[in-house]
Amino acid sequence: MPPLITLLTDYGAGSGYPAQVKGVLLAALPDARIVDVSHDVPRHDVLAGALLLEACAPWFPRGAIHVAVVDPGVGTARRALCVVDPEGRRFVAPDNGLLTPFLGPGSRAVVIEPGRALPPPRTATFHGRDLFAPAAVLLARGEDPSALGAAVDDPVRLEWPRAAVAAGEVRGETLAADPFGNVVTSIRESDLPAGAAVLEAEADGRPARWVRTFGEGRPGELLALLGSGGRVELAVREASAAALLGRARGVKVRLVLVGRAGGAC
Amino acid sequence: MPPLITLLTDYGAGSGYPAQVKGVLLAALPDARIVDVSHDVPRHDVLAGALLLEACAPWFPRGAIHVAVVDPGVGTARRALCVVDPEGRRFVAPDNGLLTPFLGPGSRAVVIEPGRALPPPRTATFHGRDLFAPAAVLLARGEDPSALGAAVDDPVRLEWPRAAVAAGEVRGETLAADPFGNVVTSIRESDLPAGAAVLEAEADGRPARWVRTFGEGRPGELLALLGSGGRVELAVREASAAALLGRARGVKVRLVLVGRAGGAC
Amino acid sequence: MPPLITLLTDYGAGSGYPAQVKGVLLAALPDARIVDVSHDVPRHDVLAGALLLEACAPWFPRGAIHVAVVDPGVGTARRALCVVDPEGRRFVAPDNGLLTPFLGPGSRAVVIEPGRALPPPRTATFHGRDLFAPAAVLLARGEDPSALGAAVDDPVRLEWPRAAVAAGEVRGETLAADPFGNVVTSIRESDLPAGAAVLEAEADGRPARWVRTFGEGRPGELLALLGSGGRVELAVREASAAALLGRARGVKVRLVLVGRAGGAC
Repeated sequence: MPPLITLLTDYGAGSGYPAQVKGVLLAALPDARIVDVSHDVPRHDVLAGALLLEACAPWFPRGAIHVAVVDPGVGTARRALCVVDPEGRRFVAPDNGLLTPFLGPGSRAVVIEPGRALPPPRTATFHGRDLFAPAAVLLARGEDPSALGAAVDDPVRLEWPRAAVAAGEVRGETLAADPFGNVVTSIRESDLPAGAAVLEAEADGRPARWVRTFGEGRPGELLALLGSGGRVELAVREASAAALLGRARGVKVRLVLVGRAGGAC
Repeated sequence: MPPLITLLTDYGAGSGYPAQVKGVLLAALPDARIVDVSHDVPRHDVLAGALLLEACAPWFPRGAIHVAVVDPGVGTARRALCVVDPEGRRFVAPDNGLLTPFLGPGSRAVVIEPGRALPPPRTATFHGRDLFAPAAVLLARGEDPSALGAAVDDPVRLEWPRAAVAAGEVRGETLAADPFGNVVTSIRESDLPAGAAVLEAEADGRPARWVRTFGEGRPGELLALLGSGGRVELAVREASAAALLGRARGVKVRLVLVGRAGGAC
Repeated sequence: MPPLITLLTDYGAGSGYPAQVKGVLLAALPDARIVDVSHDVPRHDVLAGALLLEACAPWFPRGAIHVAVVDPGVGTARRALCVVDPEGRRFVAPDNGLLTPFLGPGSRAVVIEPGRALPPPRTATFHGRDLFAPAAVLLARGEDPSALGAAVDDPVRLEWPRAAVAAGEVRGETLAADPFGNVVTSIRESDLPAGAAVLEAEADGRPARWVRTFGEGRPGELLALLGSGGRVELAVREASAAALLGRARGVKVRLVLVGRAGGAC
């Protein structure tokens, strides 16, 4: 099977930078399949990139190689990483937290050390093309990540708000918006206690009605729902929840739960 | 030949949603070729999506499968469709009028019934990934559309302004703008009587000069011409007709015709 | 090896125009690999397109065919070109200067003459689909460019500011910005005298600190550096130099040099 490589960056799709990365990949791997995950990560927003990668990478075949570059520290002392998650998915990215969702127990991380399997990057400002693409080529050719450099146990992990689950409620925060203005929160589907249902929801104290899908909303009404990426989301039918809330990140969210029997759990 | 699948959505190219759709397609069809028609359909604008699909789908090989998702009613009672047009082109889309251009005489439509060939969609909010992509996979594997569900004869059709052809003139309306600000109208090339030529054109009573191509215009001058998609368009040389007109949809357009002999026809 | 075709336009990725070009290519060349270089060239900005092509095309395999269309004169008397550069790279584009970076000594140019190998374009407004894509198909099938039309020695070349190298300094101008707001200048790496180092830099008289990479900057500080495309660039760490300077094109840039020994050279 030809190699499958995905790209996630904040370069802008039309900037020419993704094209240069693809040129490097195709020059080395003429039959590679390359899929753009996104080139529209908000610039330098490592958390937004990490959330997008978390939502997307699991949908690709396990053998895919994921190149992720949101890299305000390019060319400085920040390290470059190759990570293999417990499912066998392979990633290359700067060591700035972008891979946080895949750095759980059972993950392996190595530092990409220029001068080992790869020459030093040709520029200090474009490691997507000059370091991460060549690293992906090596992996696609079957090299083990250990060829790239030494294992490390301290990759940078982003700290971001998690859900706080207490009797009868779950609290969290909004993290990022999609282009519809739907806002994902720090509350994952797996944070909701088994058998519990959401009775009411609030965002910065403002009521949000718990629904199954967008179309159930009334015009302008704030909604809360289980989003397609496994996180609780806020939304407004055919409009932007981020605009309604005034921001995409940092809104406090609270869900009041009831157990299956109907009482507060 | 490997399957060719096109995608048209209002998701935003960099939102991660097209990438998840592609992940599902490639996991099932590793050799599929996937082409983005657009992920920039104005959000929830089913008419704009239908016009774009009308302009683009005919240029692809007949065997292509077109996945089109502009779907404000996702997860509600709206049906999901598979349509085969008289040329054999296959489409999957929500039943909201998005496929109107391909629902003429000789087209076949079936409802995609979860629980038949496909399991119920995993989420209520992302049928592009959870219903339409799996449907496209089945078609790409050679399944007949009838495997997806029962034939229907009442798919939703959008009503949109058509051209009104009268002695010596054709009237219509603008429908949508492209990124240049060129505006397509409801007047198709095929609405112009054979042998007729356009003598003058107007948009909301404002004169528009009939030309062959953009470069014939003077700076700021409103132009009318036969566009590349088979519809009359309004344009301004190296500028935006939509901006000049103040809107992209609903501008009344009138063409005055002359027959080949030079008299009004 | 299947043909590799790149596309650079100002059409907008989601406009449907790139999709129609791809449909034409794939209908004729079902196994073609198509890579988007950019569809976000600023509209009608031939210089910006030329700079982007200059930065990107060299990263692709030599056998790639580059289709470049920024074409305000489409359908007028402007000619259409096929160019082969000294490295064997093949381009098709309007004859308006878009290929200037590849028109040096040793390049070959032929005019694409409709009615020779290709029929006249079907529309006057969309030569990307109706002329340049069919020309790329012919090249991909192994036709020699001479099949398209007669050789010409006067292709349109853009004049743009070049670097002026004098004792101890290099002067130039900014030309275009990328989506980060980094601004490329007319000073190429190859304009800097061998062995010289940059001591100080200015942009419209404003000091710019010479650095290796973005992350060395202080917040809001204007930086100058060797960019990844082989040109001197201006940048601001995690912010936009174009915004700071008030424009992307026409800012005067001056670099003061010292020789390796430390004296002004």
